[in-house]
Order: sequence, then C-alpha cells, then structure tokens
Amino acid sequence: MSQSIGSTCWAIAEGYIPAYSNGPEPQFTSHETVCILNAGDSDAHVEMTIFYSDQEPVGPYQVTVPARRTRHIRFNDLTDPKPIPHDTDFASVIRSDVPIVVQHTRLDSRQSENALLSTIAYASN
Amino acid sequence: MSQSIGSTCWAIAEGYIPAYSNGPEPQFTSHETVCILNAGDSDAHVEMTIFYSDQEPVGPYQVTVPARRTRHIRFNDLTDPKPIPHDTDFASVIRSDVPIVVQHTRLDSRQSENALLSTIAYASN
Amino acid sequence: MSQSIGSTCWAIAEGYIPAYSNGPEPQFTSHETVCILNAGDSDAHVEMTIFYSDQEPVGPYQVTVPARRTRHIRFNDLTDPKPIPHDTDFASVIRSDVPIVVQHTRLDSRQSENALLSTIAYASN
Amino acid sequence: MSQSIGSTCWAIAEGYIPAYSNGPEPQFTSHETVCILNAGDSDAHVEMTIFYSDQEPVGPYQVTVPARRTRHIRFNDLTDPKPIPHDTDFASVIRSDVPIVVQHTRLDSRQSENALLSTIAYASN
Repeated sequence: MSQSIGSTCWAIAEGYIPAYSNGPEPQFTSHETVCILNAGDSDAHVEMTIFYSDQEPVGPYQVTVPARRTRHIRFNDLTDPKPIPHDTDFASVIRSDVPIVVQHTRLDSRQSENALLSTIAYASN
Repeated sequence: MSQSIGSTCWAIAEGYIPAYSNGPEPQFTSHETVCILNAGDSDAHVEMTIFYSDQEPVGPYQVTVPARRTRHIRFNDLTDPKPIPHDTDFASVIRSDVPIVVQHTRLDSRQSENALLSTIAYASN
Repeated sequence: MSQSIGSTCWAIAEGYIPAYSNGPEPQFTSHETVCILNAGDSDAHVEMTIFYSDQEPVGPYQVTVPARRTRHIRFNDLTDPKPIPHDTDFASVIRSDVPIVVQHTRLDSRQSENALLSTIAYASN
Repeated sequence: MSQSIGSTCWAIAEGYIPAYSNGPEPQFTSHETVCILNAGDSDAHVEMTIFYSDQEPVGPYQVTVPARRTRHIRFNDLTDPKPIPHDTDFASVIRSDVPIVVQHTRLDSRQSENALLSTIAYASN
C-alpha cells in the first residue's frame, strides 16, 4: 500500500506564533503547525532549522516520523535546542533522509473567532 | 475542449475534521474537502489512502470522477472501508489511473464565524 | 523591466460561490476570484473553462490580460457564455497564449465576519 | 547548517491591501505580506516589481535579505519608489541574485474578527 512520496528538503518562509489565544485548549490555542507525511516504508529522520530576521538560525530540531505515519507538529511545542519565541517572525527548513510531504497551517485565535491559513510548503529539488 | 491535466499521484499532509460545527447544515458543517478535477476524456478511478499518527494507513477509499467533471469530496463522507474519526490528525495520498488535479479545503465552523483554508495538494511526479 | 513568467495552462480544482453575503458591497460580496498576472510584453488571450460535477464543461470564457498588467476576475462576474450558478461546486482550467501566473482566492462573507482562502493554482507543464 | 534553497524568480498574482483595520496595531493592521527566506550563505539582493490593472508596473523596490535570515515585508511599508495604494488590485514579481523562498500572507482585519490567507508563491524556473 505504501510508496515513498515527496521531497527530502522543504522550506516555509512564513512563520509566526501569535502571542495569545482565545477558546478551549489545546484545540483553540493559537498555533503554527508543520504537517509531515511519511508515506514510505522507512522511518523519516527529520531535522528542522528555524531562521529569524535578526539572529543566526537555530537547530536542528529533530523529529522522527515513522514509516506510513503523519505527524502534525506545533512549532509551539519545539523545545530542543530551544523554544521559538512568540510574536516573532521566523521561517523554517525541513530536511529528511527519506522523501516526505510538508504542509504549513496556522490557527490564529487571538480574537474570539479563529482564522486559518494553510499551504503546501516549498519542495526543493 | 478537454485535455488531460495534472498528475496521477497527490498528497495532502494536513487533515483534521473539527469535532463540532455551528450554522445551517450542510453548508456550515465543519468539513475537510478534497476537490478533484478530471479535465480529460477518460473517467478517473481514484484511490485515496488515509494516514494517521498512531496506526497503519486505511484504504483504499475508491472514488470515480467521470471524464470532464469535478468532484468535491468531504472526508467526513467517506465510509468504506471505514469513517475517518473527528478531532484526529490525518494525511492523505490520492492516486488515479489518469491525470487529475487535487486541491484541499477546510471549513471550520466550530465558532460562530467560520474559517477557511485551501491549498493545491502536492503533485508527485 | 518585464519578462514573461509562468505557464500557459493552469487548473483550480476548488470553486464555489457562496449563495449570500454580509457587509458593504462590492468589497464584502462573497466572491471567488481568479487572479491573473501577465508580466510579459505581449497581451495574454485567456480562455477559461468551467467544470461541474453533473454537466458538461462550459466555456470558453474569454478574457484579455494586457501586457504588464494583472486582472483579478470574480467568477461571479462571468456571464458569457453563461453565469456560474451559486452554491454549486465547480472547477476551472485557464489557458493562455502567453505565460501567465494564476492564483485563486475566495472571500466568504456569509457570516458577519468574513473568511479568506488563497492558493497558487496548479501549473500544467 | 546553511544551504541555498529556492528560486531566483517568484510571482504572486494576488495582491490587495484592505482599506481599513480593526484591533491593536501593528499586529492587527490589515496587511499583505511577502515572506522571504534566504537560507544560503550569501546576502540576497531582492527587487520587487508591482503590477497593476490599469497602469505600468512600478519598481524596482529594493530589499536585502541577509544570509541565513528571513524577512517578512508588508507591502504596506514599501515607499520607494512609491507607496502601494490601498483598496487596489495588484500583483508582484520578486527577483533575487541568489535563491530564496517566497510566501504570501494577508491579514484582513476590516471586520472585528480577522481573516487570514497564505500560499507559497509561484517559483519560476
């Protein structure tokens, strides 16, 4: 059923974790998510690097996405090597040892009604 | 007028059916949609596989998109081999025997004002 | 300053004009827009075909995007050969005699607060 | 840690700065943003050209994105050679002397609850 799909290097130029939230947690916590699909039969060892406007990149943040699994990772939850500050512009590069598919989603619940955005990330060849 | 456009393999790394809704149904039912365009002159036999974070993929879900037609399919409505649970992260791979174009849309109506997201899916070569 | 950018064939698998609106017109009229950029030095003669779930495609809708111009066209405003029905799923294929760039946006103002979606369309090679 | 990713020519067919805003500034000022990631080790000298529906393109707007940095630039803030009018359709072409990744985001706060859209821009080859 499984077959490797995607690319081994992806980039997301947008990144911003809103500073506050409204509504029941964790579903309505304002968050920035990187959705990773590993449709292949080998585990994906993924390294994410976070880029900022005014300091050197931070990383790698290491994540394993097992074979035939998806993981939707909130940037909010990344802590090692260090958390991503809120209300700060960032961008990210996602590298994997096997092909994966990457999509970027934000839920912004700073106001009483939430807002959503999503886009497939940029696949580098 | 018609000519085959697209790819035979697509992936959507994001997937999430909100657990509840507000507003008149079915337009305002929270939903996650895969929009498929078959611009060619042969029917498209489409197989979708759903990937999860903590279990083996489920599928194939089989859908036919007739020649020169579009179908906007709510993941909520897929039942065979089994329904997709709500409030659960998933991802999907869409394969077809002829080229199609795939786009992903969500309407989230958990709050009184809805939110929307959409992106062209990832076309595998 | 100008140079031709893009593709001569694009597809948008999602299409849906909400049936009603809230807020001041025309900015807050619910609409589905195809944004076309012609960055080159020749006028683009564009033909759009609309695909449905239950009838043959309708078109071509003919639009000219002059050299070095952009046009943001609401599907709501297309009338020749015939208007697109509201509250109906559709998809579109956009062909041009010179390279263009196509992006798809929706403003949904059915509720008192609007919702937005946008994605670059699928570029066929 | 760094490696050049992306393309040297990008296009965004959608562009529109809402005419007014709600909520605390600057976070909730209605804005249209171009997010640029320069993941490489050389500074990116970026030139943006703005296209309109009814006049010749304006530009170049010059921006430097230092090596290993991201910049999220609001079209609202571009002033040289001249500001972009509000409530006006536009499009943009972004060229760089080194590979970059470009993403387009809008926050529309004309109503009391904001709306968001985002998409990876079109990468020209």
